Amino acid sequence: MSEIFKAHLDKFIPVTDEEFASIMNYFEIKSFAKKEDLLEEGQICRSNYFVIKGLLRKFFINEKGTEQTTDFALETWWMTDNFSFERKTPADFSIQTVEKSEVLTISSESQEKLLNDFPIMEKYFRIVYQRAFAANQRRVKYIFTYSKEDFYFSLIKQYPDFVQRVPQYLIASFLGFTPEYLSEIRKRIVS
Amino acid sequence: MSEIFKAHLDKFIPVTDEEFASIMNYFEIKSFAKKEDLLEEGQICRSNYFVIKGLLRKFFINEKGTEQTTDFALETWWMTDNFSFERKTPADFSIQTVEKSEVLTISSESQEKLLNDFPIMEKYFRIVYQRAFAANQRRVKYIFTYSKEDFYFSLIKQYPDFVQRVPQYLIASFLGFTPEYLSEIRKRIVS
Repeated sequence: MSEIFKAHLDKFIPVTDEEFASIMNYFEIKSFAKKEDLLEEGQICRSNYFVIKGLLRKFFINEKGTEQTTDFALETWWMTDNFSFERKTPADFSIQTVEKSEVLTISSESQEKLLNDFPIMEKYFRIVYQRAFAANQRRVKYIFTYSKEDFYFSLIKQYPDFVQRVPQYLIASFLGFTPEYLSEIRKRIVS
Repeated sequence: MSEIFKAHLDKFIPVTDEEFASIMNYFEIKSFAKKEDLLEEGQICRSNYFVIKGLLRKFFINEKGTEQTTDFALETWWMTDNFSFERKTPADFSIQTVEKSEVLTISSESQEKLLNDFPIMEKYFRIVYQRAFAANQRRVKYIFTYSKEDFYFSLIKQYPDFVQRVPQYLIASFLGFTPEYLSEIRKRIVS
């Protein structure tokens, strides 16, 4: 499974096979069942997760007591509770598998050690966080700009495979809809 | 002015005075008047800005034709349109000074060259983007969680100096209020 991570790294930084074998020692490969909890809101987040196969989501329980999904992580995406992972503070978010998943995990101590021992990984993570931040900035603009309905339409248009892959109740949880309301909108699109 | 940047870097990475003198060659120091445009939505963003003194804001024009402010950058904070800066695509945001400001600017070409010539700066920018991303993730949670009123109250509580420093019409533009509505809320707090 680790060749997926190697092919991914190759897009960002030069890493020999020998270096990669050493880099992999900082990670563990774990398998999770569908709907398995990786982190619960309020816990200390001990791991950063890299998805090799499957799908994760990040969510919190809103004031109505329902799950508000804020992010998904597909293959070759990272996911963690960033503040909690760095500062050992209680997590703002929960993380759960959406599908059966194969994941690389690394603890914050191992990640710090990896960055010290292989400074080229600083470049890799710099690019990863730079792009994640850029995407999040655009996300904030979208939240202010689009109505929930328009956001759903743009999701279908930009990421049709993703909308097909994710259960509808989670798309609803991501958009802040009830599943019933999403179902109504879908009927309207078909008719 | 550059000693402010040196003191800031010292918090993240070891840099000798000689190295710092070389690093400064990649930057320009610029002065901007109050309310001066550094970037307009739709332009290509050519610079990353580090605030030495003063205050910047990032905004876009929403569908009602009013300015929605999404971010502020105080002293020792970075600001750019991240996608546009990296990919040379039209900017999603405008950037403007709120106060007369002293700013370090670096072009994307110079920043790439700086990172190649001084790999220790990869670590610095990795930490900067990592924290910016973490803050933005929490921001998304706040947007979903707080009403605009509650968000204003938490701003006053967490950042009283900041709320004092920024003109009220810009606080309103950040919160998505009209200035009149913000003024009403403020009266309600006083009474």
